[in-house]
Amino acid sequence: MAVSKCTRLSGPLTKQVLDSVDSVLFDCDGVIWRGDQPIPGAPEVVNLLKKAGKRVFFVTNNSTKTRKMYMEKLEKLGFEASEDEVFGTAYCSAVYLKTVCNLQGKVYLIGSNAMRQELEAMGIEQVGVGPDPVSGGQKDWASVPLDPEVKAVLVGFDEHFSYMKLNRALQYLSNSECQFVGTNTDSRLPLEGGKAVPGTGCLLKAVETAAQRHAQVVGKPSSFMFKCMASKFKLEPSKCLMVGDRLDTDIMLGTTCGLKTLLALTGVSTVADAEEHQRSGCPKRQGMVPDYYVDSIAEILPALQA
Amino acid sequence: MAVSKCTRLSGPLTKQVLDSVDSVLFDCDGVIWRGDQPIPGAPEVVNLLKKAGKRVFFVTNNSTKTRKMYMEKLEKLGFEASEDEVFGTAYCSAVYLKTVCNLQGKVYLIGSNAMRQELEAMGIEQVGVGPDPVSGGQKDWASVPLDPEVKAVLVGFDEHFSYMKLNRALQYLSNSECQFVGTNTDSRLPLEGGKAVPGTGCLLKAVETAAQRHAQVVGKPSSFMFKCMASKFKLEPSKCLMVGDRLDTDIMLGTTCGLKTLLALTGVSTVADAEEHQRSGCPKRQGMVPDYYVDSIAEILPALQA
Repeated sequence: MAVSKCTRLSGPLTKQVLDSVDSVLFDCDGVIWRGDQPIPGAPEVVNLLKKAGKRVFFVTNNSTKTRKMYMEKLEKLGFEASEDEVFGTAYCSAVYLKTVCNLQGKVYLIGSNAMRQELEAMGIEQVGVGPDPVSGGQKDWASVPLDPEVKAVLVGFDEHFSYMKLNRALQYLSNSECQFVGTNTDSRLPLEGGKAVPGTGCLLKAVETAAQRHAQVVGKPSSFMFKCMASKFKLEPSKCLMVGDRLDTDIMLGTTCGLKTLLALTGVSTVADAEEHQRSGCPKRQGMVPDYYVDSIAEILPALQA
Repeated sequence: MAVSKCTRLSGPLTKQVLDSVDSVLFDCDGVIWRGDQPIPGAPEVVNLLKKAGKRVFFVTNNSTKTRKMYMEKLEKLGFEASEDEVFGTAYCSAVYLKTVCNLQGKVYLIGSNAMRQELEAMGIEQVGVGPDPVSGGQKDWASVPLDPEVKAVLVGFDEHFSYMKLNRALQYLSNSECQFVGTNTDSRLPLEGGKAVPGTGCLLKAVETAAQRHAQVVGKPSSFMFKCMASKFKLEPSKCLMVGDRLDTDIMLGTTCGLKTLLALTGVSTVADAEEHQRSGCPKRQGMVPDYYVDSIAEILPALQA
């Protein structure tokens, strides 16, 4: 029987859906926490899922933390978690450079110390972390010293992003053999109270415009993060449930990879957004329609406690 | 008789075309100079055009110089020029904010001292020029102090571009009444020897991505710069010749505004590029096909010396 998309998950359907999967993938910000506060009930949901024998993964586009830093945050907020359940773009970008790009050389990194640590843990040397203020004039910029061992440019979140970093990336990427990878394309980091600050997508657009090239993107909705998990844990897509608050990243990833999808209304997207995609008649936009939605993941608690 | 587009300007046709116009608009970099060197013969062409009674204008997307600075550069390189013949985006953006935006307030400026001077000459106060390094964390960035009198964000070339500037622009532009203007969208500044550094287009893309809004663009191919000249000097479009080295800015501007167009092959675009646009069958791309082309504007010298 064909089930209509974007169904509210409640009553017996909840247990039915949970019984049909063996793994649950959670986006973090807007789903299990907001900033430094857990979503009420979220730790219980995660911990009970594990108790019920489900595998749980944490899947985030945020590149500012290592897996270890995420694990510590999860534990502090009351979630049972281990490092290898965390898939952030700092870690996944390092895996991508190693396995997909088959990188033989250093990375010019526009990014954070956390990204540096994940690269180094994978045996990849990097240059570039930290402030890089401008000096001199156009001719100096065009002939800025480059490290000949750099074979890839990786762009993630970097609060020290500057014209000089943009320029260095352009000079490296002028060599067509230099690979070009971005952690994610999120244009904003949403904060409490409807506020936001610029996200990695802004920095990546600037570098793409300068380089006149498109980056390979590791984060959601690119399917790489799921592939990364799936190969390590032998996941069966149809037995996975992707839970997220964003249609264009979380739900899209789920659809692309053949996972079941659940939208939690504690973050960015709304049911109205999903319905608009559904009505659009556009196949790509229909990929952003979740199978199910809940106001908050706390709503699945009763099915787990039963 | 319909004349085919993209015709080499030579022999008697040159004099015929020059006789049909009373004003000649020159793009600067790649047409009359390259970096700090005049294109050989270019000063003679400009000076003889003036001697023959033509009005000459200098039209550039580069926002790093005031009209006065351009005039001084022109004179140093042997061109007869006066300040009011120069239309750069630093000056035109100030005119745009004053006349089109009808700005009542200050500007948050991502740009140069030259832009600040042109704004101030027009009686517009600005904040933002100079370095703006990052400090604090996400919450501090989201609540960065804003000047309540700022009613527009203007993005031009800024070697001090930084994450903090991007963030400030986002915070100002979160107010939908704050106007949003960009000098130009050129993605690179081309330099000698095939080198390039990032252009204003990269910075503007970053800000547009963060603000989730499109800027109003002043520079070529937007028609504003021609309108700015035309209203001041009562120019008749069909009696103007636009000379440029870029199809996507100079020639496009000329087509949009109904000017005659001449591509000089001393800069970015080639005849092959123009022919590809012509064959495309796409109306927008055909706007990038010039009426005429020359290897260098020096080729029109004989027609002026006759």
